[in-house]
Amino acid sequence: MKVKDKNELATLQKAVLEANLLLYNSKLALHTWGNVSAISKDRSYYVIKPSGIPYEKMQFSDMVAVDLENNVLESELNPSSDTPTHSLIYKADHRISAIVHTHSPFAVSWAQAGKEIPALGTTHADNFFGAIPCTDSLTDEQINGEYEHNTGLVILDHFRKNQLDFIATPGVLVKEHGPFCWSDKSAIDAVKLAMTFEEIAKMAFYTKLMNPLQNQANPVLQRKHYNRKHGKNAYYGQKK
Amino acid sequence: MKVKDKNELATLQKAVLEANLLLYNSKLALHTWGNVSAISKDRSYYVIKPSGIPYEKMQFSDMVAVDLENNVLESELNPSSDTPTHSLIYKADHRISAIVHTHSPFAVSWAQAGKEIPALGTTHADNFFGAIPCTDSLTDEQINGEYEHNTGLVILDHFRKNQLDFIATPGVLVKEHGPFCWSDKSAIDAVKLAMTFEEIAKMAFYTKLMNPLQNQANPVLQRKHYNRKHGKNAYYGQKK
Amino acid sequence: MKVKDKNELATLQKAVLEANLLLYNSKLALHTWGNVSAISKDRSYYVIKPSGIPYEKMQFSDMVAVDLENNVLESELNPSSDTPTHSLIYKADHRISAIVHTHSPFAVSWAQAGKEIPALGTTHADNFFGAIPCTDSLTDEQINGEYEHNTGLVILDHFRKNQLDFIATPGVLVKEHGPFCWSDKSAIDAVKLAMTFEEIAKMAFYTKLMNPLQNQANPVLQRKHYNRKHGKNAYYGQKK
Amino acid sequence: MKVKDKNELATLQKAVLEANLLLYNSKLALHTWGNVSAISKDRSYYVIKPSGIPYEKMQFSDMVAVDLENNVLESELNPSSDTPTHSLIYKADHRISAIVHTHSPFAVSWAQAGKEIPALGTTHADNFFGAIPCTDSLTDEQINGEYEHNTGLVILDHFRKNQLDFIATPGVLVKEHGPFCWSDKSAIDAVKLAMTFEEIAKMAFYTKLMNPLQNQANPVLQRKHYNRKHGKNAYYGQKK
Repeated sequence: MKVKDKNELATLQKAVLEANLLLYNSKLALHTWGNVSAISKDRSYYVIKPSGIPYEKMQFSDMVAVDLENNVLESELNPSSDTPTHSLIYKADHRISAIVHTHSPFAVSWAQAGKEIPALGTTHADNFFGAIPCTDSLTDEQINGEYEHNTGLVILDHFRKNQLDFIATPGVLVKEHGPFCWSDKSAIDAVKLAMTFEEIAKMAFYTKLMNPLQNQANPVLQRKHYNRKHGKNAYYGQKK
Repeated sequence: MKVKDKNELATLQKAVLEANLLLYNSKLALHTWGNVSAISKDRSYYVIKPSGIPYEKMQFSDMVAVDLENNVLESELNPSSDTPTHSLIYKADHRISAIVHTHSPFAVSWAQAGKEIPALGTTHADNFFGAIPCTDSLTDEQINGEYEHNTGLVILDHFRKNQLDFIATPGVLVKEHGPFCWSDKSAIDAVKLAMTFEEIAKMAFYTKLMNPLQNQANPVLQRKHYNRKHGKNAYYGQKK
Repeated sequence: MKVKDKNELATLQKAVLEANLLLYNSKLALHTWGNVSAISKDRSYYVIKPSGIPYEKMQFSDMVAVDLENNVLESELNPSSDTPTHSLIYKADHRISAIVHTHSPFAVSWAQAGKEIPALGTTHADNFFGAIPCTDSLTDEQINGEYEHNTGLVILDHFRKNQLDFIATPGVLVKEHGPFCWSDKSAIDAVKLAMTFEEIAKMAFYTKLMNPLQNQANPVLQRKHYNRKHGKNAYYGQKK
Repeated sequence: MKVKDKNELATLQKAVLEANLLLYNSKLALHTWGNVSAISKDRSYYVIKPSGIPYEKMQFSDMVAVDLENNVLESELNPSSDTPTHSLIYKADHRISAIVHTHSPFAVSWAQAGKEIPALGTTHADNFFGAIPCTDSLTDEQINGEYEHNTGLVILDHFRKNQLDFIATPGVLVKEHGPFCWSDKSAIDAVKLAMTFEEIAKMAFYTKLMNPLQNQANPVLQRKHYNRKHGKNAYYGQKK
């Protein structure tokens, strides 16, 4: 019993369950695939989907609380096997409050093709500043070692080397694997972004088949659309 | 309080809400994307979806009344950020009574590819006379200036330069952005056309992958089908 | 009032309505597109969907009775504009008891590409003996003349020239237009075949993208599968 | 009346009906296509879908009990025409407890293209160890002889020649025909695998269109993911 504020825990568990169900009902994953987590206010622990439990049967109390060193704090269930990847992403940027991993088919296909998703139009630019990156492969040693931890490291390395900001680029493709994305708002918001990620991946796939030479939309147009929705001069939506 | 006929306003708001919900339920846009507007009889104002409000939560009274200079007449909500584009299209042709913007994936992909949708068969020709055009890019100055107004200008320029009629060609792709279409009948009719637009975009995508050399259906066949449904000798449907 | 047996008429109208609704609910056509008809036992008239009426609003009594010369026998509504095409197909083979026209996207795309659908596997061969043919284009004179009648003629010509049997090949693509198919059983059976037609068109599209050199499955395999379901030695299904 | 344990029979019939309905509702087959079977504990008989009966009308008591020589033990209905293929697969490996055949479109398209599905990423590797194989064609003699029995032989030959294990490779494409897969757990589990099979086939199709040179994911990564879910050191899911 290492989580003190049981109310916050239950609230987080309910939010994480709701977000996992949205993931499943939006067809971003089959069976028991995919997972959503969300972190506590003081960032001392986060709550994540249990491993291998069917979405239809999950109760909010099944959501597993783990600390950032991957220790289970509260639960008799195993957390998602991708837990160490989540931990590293939370540690990489303190603004990140929820993380999603899916097996949505177009995003996975870009990852399997080993290609970043180019920013080909305003639907993309409204949500991601620049291409959605694709990591390098893990080395054989990384795969045979602490695999899920090393998956996180490969993501972090990619962002560091390419000087990417985790909020402006709130998602990534892990090569030969699939998409991860995150939100600085909430678990539900992170799943909505995963839906957007798949829609963008689909549109980019169709666009490249129609016009293989198209590499990116005008960067001025990309910046305009990104700033319309994000940052201090954003004017999309209602005053808060 | 600048709209006098409150009954007409409420009727328009209800029609615009219903049309927006059809857009969303027909999966022409995710989340808060896309928008529908419809103009009043005297064309002194039109009613448009508010910016960034989830479709599931919209009430008819949330639909924003604006004049053709983009001034909000009645509402505490911001109108769609695409409002200035709608205004210019309404001013371009007094027959247009409703306008729709979607992010439907096949239409967006043609826009991202920067290509017009060729009229490859009768499904297209029943609804659009000739190709669905794709505009030029906006210049960097146009993007950094009054962007949404300039988006409308680029559409109008394209129709003027190519001598296109807004009723025979009731839709357009804005390059690297997506589709706009309109109706001389009603908001619901405009959304039905947006569904058709996406269906045509999908069929043209498949056709070009199968036969890249196919550029357009026989123009005599196109004219036959367009005239079967439109104009004074139309014989599709029931006597009015 | 030229139909004597009002009971048969009502029964046919109900069957045709039900089949039209299956077409629409199976997403083989949007809006008011597509149509189903079925012929009376003595082949003196058939019943067809009215032109341009939304599927959601159709009543069985709206289904229009016409004779094989395209005269409306019973109804104040106009029959489908494709009626003369149906008449010619019914006259071409007295075994045909129901006809369907759809705008299903993969089938339309093959028609727009101007290509027959090759028999690439057993799913195809279970239902169609050999490729699904694609007609020649109509001439400009044929288009500007009695267009829908001439559409039927082009189909009949294609079957005659290629010595195709209407039951072994129960469907066709009209070039730059779309699919027609028919059944010797019932209106519902014809719509189920239209669903199969679209599924086969989809599979053939994917197959050709993966392997452009694949032209047809082994003809011995095709014959085996066709005969498993059709003809006197068929052994699929239950004893009748 | 050759089945003694009527309780086991009824339990199997209910499980096989439920699995067949999941197949149909998951859109892995249209109309009466596809079939699921499951074998009794002592492997003296198995229960399979009847031939050509609509899924909507099937009762659990319609599921046909047959022995491994394809003799009907209990039922007035004909079993699926693919029964002899099932029998051979059950005889090939005593661990197999349920078998599924579908007409899911992406899997069928790979079979029609005559190509194995390469293991392009972790979604594949989580479920199949290595590529999903595609058999050789049947010879004309095999087709004209005991066709369904010979379909089973061609599968068995392929596994034997390529030293494939039926549990590590729980599925196959029959060339120019379509997918079969199986489970060592249950009928429902076999249908869930058929859903996975189709998802993998779809992703591989998209991946190869994007990057035709991609032939397989890193074999070390494949082995890691397969072993994460299968075998004695598996750590995905909950302790049993």
